[in-house]
Amino acid sequence: MVSRTYLDHASTTPARPEAVAAWQRWVGLPQADPARLHEEGRLVRGALEEAREQVALLVGALPREVVFTSGATEAINAAVWGATRRQAGAPVLFANVEHSAVRDASVRSGPSEVIAVNETARVDLDALAERLASKTLPRPGLVHCQWANHEVGTLQPVQEVVDLCRSAGVTVHVDAAAACGHVPMNLDELGADLVSISAHKLGGFPGAGALVIRRGSRIEPFIVGGEQERARRAGLEAMPALLAFGAAAGVLGAYGQDALREEAKAARRLIAAVAQVAGTVDQVTVVGPAAATERLPHLICLGVGGVEAEPVLIGLDRAGVAVHSGSACASESIEPSPVLEAMGVDSSHSLRVSVGWTTTDADIEAFRRAFGEVVAALRALRA
Amino acid sequence: MVSRTYLDHASTTPARPEAVAAWQRWVGLPQADPARLHEEGRLVRGALEEAREQVALLVGALPREVVFTSGATEAINAAVWGATRRQAGAPVLFANVEHSAVRDASVRSGPSEVIAVNETARVDLDALAERLASKTLPRPGLVHCQWANHEVGTLQPVQEVVDLCRSAGVTVHVDAAAACGHVPMNLDELGADLVSISAHKLGGFPGAGALVIRRGSRIEPFIVGGEQERARRAGLEAMPALLAFGAAAGVLGAYGQDALREEAKAARRLIAAVAQVAGTVDQVTVVGPAAATERLPHLICLGVGGVEAEPVLIGLDRAGVAVHSGSACASESIEPSPVLEAMGVDSSHSLRVSVGWTTTDADIEAFRRAFGEVVAALRALRA
Repeated sequence: MVSRTYLDHASTTPARPEAVAAWQRWVGLPQADPARLHEEGRLVRGALEEAREQVALLVGALPREVVFTSGATEAINAAVWGATRRQAGAPVLFANVEHSAVRDASVRSGPSEVIAVNETARVDLDALAERLASKTLPRPGLVHCQWANHEVGTLQPVQEVVDLCRSAGVTVHVDAAAACGHVPMNLDELGADLVSISAHKLGGFPGAGALVIRRGSRIEPFIVGGEQERARRAGLEAMPALLAFGAAAGVLGAYGQDALREEAKAARRLIAAVAQVAGTVDQVTVVGPAAATERLPHLICLGVGGVEAEPVLIGLDRAGVAVHSGSACASESIEPSPVLEAMGVDSSHSLRVSVGWTTTDADIEAFRRAFGEVVAALRALRA
Repeated sequence: MVSRTYLDHASTTPARPEAVAAWQRWVGLPQADPARLHEEGRLVRGALEEAREQVALLVGALPREVVFTSGATEAINAAVWGATRRQAGAPVLFANVEHSAVRDASVRSGPSEVIAVNETARVDLDALAERLASKTLPRPGLVHCQWANHEVGTLQPVQEVVDLCRSAGVTVHVDAAAACGHVPMNLDELGADLVSISAHKLGGFPGAGALVIRRGSRIEPFIVGGEQERARRAGLEAMPALLAFGAAAGVLGAYGQDALREEAKAARRLIAAVAQVAGTVDQVTVVGPAAATERLPHLICLGVGGVEAEPVLIGLDRAGVAVHSGSACASESIEPSPVLEAMGVDSSHSLRVSVGWTTTDADIEAFRRAFGEVVAALRALRA
């Protein structure tokens, strides 16, 4: 394999050394069921609760609010299930820029309505406030608001959305999978009923995530058949992935105040360098908000005029550079991204470049060398 | 920590060296999303499909029939969801000796009916045949039959149950979580529509399992929001746990013909030694079928007269021996096991002893030394 440059960290980022070490600790444990009364079980239970505390500390929640799941997709499905189960017929509100898990789980749960967004994918707060205040339309059963968009990086006015929903007495779920580990969060202050997060996007392993259920909220479990996670998620805990999740969260610092901010600063600088490369190539534009304060630090979406994204992606891959086109979860089926469609952007011409904890200046330099050449070659073919 | 004897393998068994090695291979891979077009993604996809083939080969299914899940509990929930979603009101049939995941997922799906069992927890085939032939009762939407019981080890007449259901045109789900990796299985010959299996009970890691969906069966996905697993289970694949699952399955041999049979033979010998120890202690009986051919090779349930199971378990733990009381998933809540209740056994006096790939004669010797003494001491306290 030739030297490779991985710039698809927003899909999934390699496990951090601390996560790998946590996993190795697991192999040294007796690997028992943490629900067991015997010493082996109690040892594993201790490790599990430590991981829960690390995750809770990163996001500013109480450990008992953290319900471990197999990932953010399951957490989102569980949030929708739990919130809508006892409110049959009450519509679920979400913007079309939400992740496909939010859309698909919501649509199958009953009636749904679309929340408007502007051209940078940002939720229209006035429209939402008006909808929540309506005395004629049915009262919503659930409102979704992603913390940040996974394709273009837009940060949502998530505190304002949560405040509006709480004032209206409507349950609110925040999909924080793309944001968690990249922007500091304090879920206690935020006050959302339900928040979904993922391990593998912050340097844990795939196979772990959490639904953070605010204290006092009671929602019906999605996966049933055991008393694990205080009877909120059945099934033997995915111990190695959960310990790795805890360790990766632990690296980023309590409330994301320390290491996370440093990593975000580095990511911003690297992404600015990607934007600069893009600026040197004709008809390449940045999709989504221009201001750095309005977007995730570690990803950027580029619109490439005149050529389709897929051949660009394949050309970059041949040149040793891995990037992504379209949303992570929509890519097995080759259909246009509804996120970009909702923004009025042609998704067949959009590339996502994302950096992570392993990314260096040399990676951006490799992208610079490859990108202009690949685009130029494809345009020459077309001409 | 004093020297420990782990005899709770039926709850979860330590990861095999081959599973650990597979995980280490994962750390060496680029750890990308297997749905991606880039080289990193394609490498991971190759590893994922290899794991699927290993699991398929162990159970005698086609790779494309294997849908990876986070474990057997999710697989069971998905089976019930998928089978009942389009048959609202059609009753689900299951015996009360099924795992709590089968019971809980079925009960919430709509009406359910109980299938009778005999005193060894074996399903009453005549009663089932009669029910399926009924022209007055509503046609069942789904019938469950566990391959083997997780608490007492009873092997069910699973082929007969599947044949009855197929003749009646009724969907059948087999929970093979306790059996898979311990008895050979050929799911192609069995012909069940849906089969649930678990990784951590055969030497993989917790956090992986599969729902085997027979070719031609179309069931709605339980976790939605992505096209993974041929659109049958959304969410980024739990790669390290799945590669470990594949490796652990691979150790046991195709169709469980070789290594699995050897391990089962060794387990039977060790369990016979446990039964012999039990026979030397007053008022200790074996619960479940007596014949070795009618039970799982690696576990035994002991009824202990005159003392409760929990103090015995705690006494054994202090003596360095880990065993289990009650069903794995019911143990966070201290309630009597419905499995044992269905058999007419007092669950508060039952212990489960189970062996695995790491168990040696020395472990059984440690059990022998501790068991009689702990029971005698507790009885003396009572006297």
